[in-house]
Amino acid sequence: MNESGRLEAFSDGVFAIATTLLILEIKVPEHAGDGLWSALGDQWPSYAAYVVSFLVIGIMWLNHHQIFRFVVRVDRTLMFLNLLLLMTVAALPWPAALMAEYLRDSSGSHAAAAVYSGLMVVMAVNYHLLWWHLTRTGHLFDDRVDTVAARATIRRFALGGLVYPATVGLSFVSAPLTLAVHGLLAVYYGFNQLPVPTKPVEGAAGAVPEAL
Amino acid sequence: MNESGRLEAFSDGVFAIATTLLILEIKVPEHAGDGLWSALGDQWPSYAAYVVSFLVIGIMWLNHHQIFRFVVRVDRTLMFLNLLLLMTVAALPWPAALMAEYLRDSSGSHAAAAVYSGLMVVMAVNYHLLWWHLTRTGHLFDDRVDTVAARATIRRFALGGLVYPATVGLSFVSAPLTLAVHGLLAVYYGFNQLPVPTKPVEGAAGAVPEAL
Amino acid sequence: MNESGRLEAFSDGVFAIATTLLILEIKVPEHAGDGLWSALGDQWPSYAAYVVSFLVIGIMWLNHHQIFRFVVRVDRTLMFLNLLLLMTVAALPWPAALMAEYLRDSSGSHAAAAVYSGLMVVMAVNYHLLWWHLTRTGHLFDDRVDTVAARATIRRFALGGLVYPATVGLSFVSAPLTLAVHGLLAVYYGFNQLPVPTKPVEGAAGAVPEAL
Amino acid sequence: MNESGRLEAFSDGVFAIATTLLILEIKVPEHAGDGLWSALGDQWPSYAAYVVSFLVIGIMWLNHHQIFRFVVRVDRTLMFLNLLLLMTVAALPWPAALMAEYLRDSSGSHAAAAVYSGLMVVMAVNYHLLWWHLTRTGHLFDDRVDTVAARATIRRFALGGLVYPATVGLSFVSAPLTLAVHGLLAVYYGFNQLPVPTKPVEGAAGAVPEAL
Repeated sequence: MNESGRLEAFSDGVFAIATTLLILEIKVPEHAGDGLWSALGDQWPSYAAYVVSFLVIGIMWLNHHQIFRFVVRVDRTLMFLNLLLLMTVAALPWPAALMAEYLRDSSGSHAAAAVYSGLMVVMAVNYHLLWWHLTRTGHLFDDRVDTVAARATIRRFALGGLVYPATVGLSFVSAPLTLAVHGLLAVYYGFNQLPVPTKPVEGAAGAVPEAL
Repeated sequence: MNESGRLEAFSDGVFAIATTLLILEIKVPEHAGDGLWSALGDQWPSYAAYVVSFLVIGIMWLNHHQIFRFVVRVDRTLMFLNLLLLMTVAALPWPAALMAEYLRDSSGSHAAAAVYSGLMVVMAVNYHLLWWHLTRTGHLFDDRVDTVAARATIRRFALGGLVYPATVGLSFVSAPLTLAVHGLLAVYYGFNQLPVPTKPVEGAAGAVPEAL
Repeated sequence: MNESGRLEAFSDGVFAIATTLLILEIKVPEHAGDGLWSALGDQWPSYAAYVVSFLVIGIMWLNHHQIFRFVVRVDRTLMFLNLLLLMTVAALPWPAALMAEYLRDSSGSHAAAAVYSGLMVVMAVNYHLLWWHLTRTGHLFDDRVDTVAARATIRRFALGGLVYPATVGLSFVSAPLTLAVHGLLAVYYGFNQLPVPTKPVEGAAGAVPEAL
Repeated sequence: MNESGRLEAFSDGVFAIATTLLILEIKVPEHAGDGLWSALGDQWPSYAAYVVSFLVIGIMWLNHHQIFRFVVRVDRTLMFLNLLLLMTVAALPWPAALMAEYLRDSSGSHAAAAVYSGLMVVMAVNYHLLWWHLTRTGHLFDDRVDTVAARATIRRFALGGLVYPATVGLSFVSAPLTLAVHGLLAVYYGFNQLPVPTKPVEGAAGAVPEAL
C-alpha cells in the first residue's frame, strides 16, 4: 500500500458511511394503516433530500478519489485538511434531515435551506484548501502531474466555487429550488470536474485513460 | 491497487454498512416485563425483514464482487452507474423498516410490500444498466473476458429481471408472501448468477476457479 | 489483492460497523440535572452490555482474521456461509440493547439473556459450519495448512461449542451472570483459539510467527 | 497486504464509523417554524461537541496510522490492546451526546464533562499500553525503527498523558472550557506527536519524509 493508501481507506470509509447514514433520515410513518400511501407521499422532501445528498457525497468521493490517484506522499497538513473536509462531509446527514423536516414549512424552509447551503460553502472551501495545498508546491504529487498547470487551475476552481455562496442567497427565495440546484451541481461536477493536469507521456500512455 | 480497487472499496463499504444498519429496525420492546417473550414474538415481521434484506444486500454484494473481479479500468459513466446502484442498495433499510412496521397490518401491508418490491425493481434496473455499460463495448474488462458472449447475456439478464415487477403485483395479494419470495430470489441469485463469460485459457488455468 | 481479499474487506466492514453501532444502545439520560450522576449509575447494564458485546464481536473478528490468513481461494459456499455468520454478528447490537434494557428487570431479564445466548449459539453454529466447509476438503487453504490436522480439530471445536447452549440454560438462573460468562468466554477465545495447523516449514520459517 | 494490514483495515473502519456516527447526536429541532434560527442557535453545544469529538477521533486515527506504518508483525497481545483502544474510541459518540445535552445545564454539565474527560483518560491509558507493548521489545517493528530510542520515549509520553486526568478536575470548574481544552489538545497532538524514532538511513532516504 503506498503512503496515501491508508488516508484514502479512512476517507472512503467516512464517505461510504455518511452516504449510508442518510437513509436514517427517512422515517417510517406511524399508525398510517389505510392512509399509508398518502403518508408516504407526504414524505417527498425526505426522498428528495436523500437523493440529492447521496449524489453530493458520492460525487465528492469520486472527485476526491480522482485527485488522490496522483498523490503519492502525505504530510501532516494534508492529513489535517483532509480531516476538515471529512468533517463537513460527515455532517451532511444533519442538514439533509433538516431539509426533510422543514422543506414544506413556509417559515422554516428558508433557514433549513440556508444551513444546507452554508455547509456546502464550508465543504467547498475545505476542498479548495486541500487542492491549494497540493498544487502550491506539488511535492506530494507523483511524477505524472504537470504541477505548473495544476497550480494554474486554482483560479478557475475558485470561480466555480462562487456558485455555493449563491445558493445561500437562493435559500431565501425557494428551499425546494435550492435543493434541486444542489442536485444539478453534483451531477455537473460528476461529469465535468477539472482534471488533474498531467504531462504528456512518452511510454506507457494507456496508464491514465482519457475517459476518466 | 488496480484502477477499480478504490471503487470496489467504496462499494464494499456501502454494502457492509447497509447490511449492518438493518439491525436498527429491530426495536427493543418497552416495559414488557413478564410479557417480554410474547412481545418479542409479536415482532416476527422485524426478524423476517432483517433476514431477507440481509440476504438481498449480501448476495447483491457477492454478485457485484463477482463482476468487478473482471473490471480493470473505470470510466466516469461506470462510476456514476455504480453510484446509482449503491443509492438503491443503501436505501433498503428504509422499506425493510416499513415492512417490519406494517406486515401485520391488513390495510398497510400491501403498500409497504409494494414499496419494498418497487425499490427492488429500481435496484434491478440499475444493476442491468451497469452490466449493459460494461458489456456494450467491453473496454473496461480485462483480457480474460469473452466480450461477445458477455454482450449476449443481456437478453437473458433482462428476462430474469422481469421477476421483480411481478413482485410488485404480488404485493397486493400478500405482503408476507412477497417478502418470502424476495428471500428465495436472493438465495437463488446467490447460487445461480450468470457467470461472466471468459475465454478458454491456455496457460495459468487455475486462476479462475470453476466453483465460484 | 488475492481472491479472498474482498471477502475479508467486506467482513471487516461488517465487524467494524457492528462493534461501533453498539454505542447507540447507551442512552443519554433526559432531564437529569442534579441527578445526572445517579442516572448515569443506573445505566450500568448498558455499559456492561457494551463492553461484553464489543469483546465478543472484536474477538470473533480476530479469529475470523486468523482463519482467513490461510484462505487463498473462495467458492460460493464459503461466501454464503460467511454471509450467514455476518448476519448473526451484525445482529448482536439488538440483543445487547435488550440486555441493557431488561438486565435489572426481575421478570424480563431471563428472556433477554436467553435471546442473547440464543444468538451466540447460532453464531457458534455458523462459525463451525464455515470451519467445517474449509477443513472438509481443504481445497481453499494455501499450501502451508496441514489439512489432515485441520480436519481433526472439528471434534474439539464442536466440544468447545457446547458451552454456548449451556449459557441459554444459565440465562434462566441469572442474567447478569450470563452476560459475565459471555465476556469471559470472549477473552478466553481471544487468547486460546485453536490455531490453524500448519505443516513444518523448511525455508522461510519466519513467515508465520509462533506468537500469533 | 502485510501482516498488520487487516488490523489497520479493521481499525480504520472503527475510527471512520465512530467519527461519522457523531453526527447522529445533532438533533433536528421539532415544530420550530418561524423560530428555527433561534432553535438552531440554542443547539450550539451539539456543534461544539461534534467538532471537538471529530478532531479527537480523527487525530487519534492519524497518530495510530503513524505508529502502525512501522509495525510489520502482530501478536495476540497487540491485537487485544488495539481492541481495547478501539472500544474507547468507538464509545466517544456517547459522552459527546451527553455533553451536547447537558453543556448548558448548570447542575448536569460538570458530570457530563467529567464523563467525557474520564473516557479520554481511559483512551490515553490504552494508547500508552499499546505503545509500551510495541516499544518494550520492539520485535513487531520493522528494521527502520530505532528501538532503544523508541523505548526511551515512554517517559515523555506518560508525562504528556498527565494532562488528561487534569481535564477531569477542570470539568468541575467549567464544562465548556473542558470541551475547548480537549479540542486544543487534539489539534496540538495533530501537529506535535512524538515521532517514531528511526535509525539514520543510508540508502533510500526519501522513503520516510521528514514532514510527516
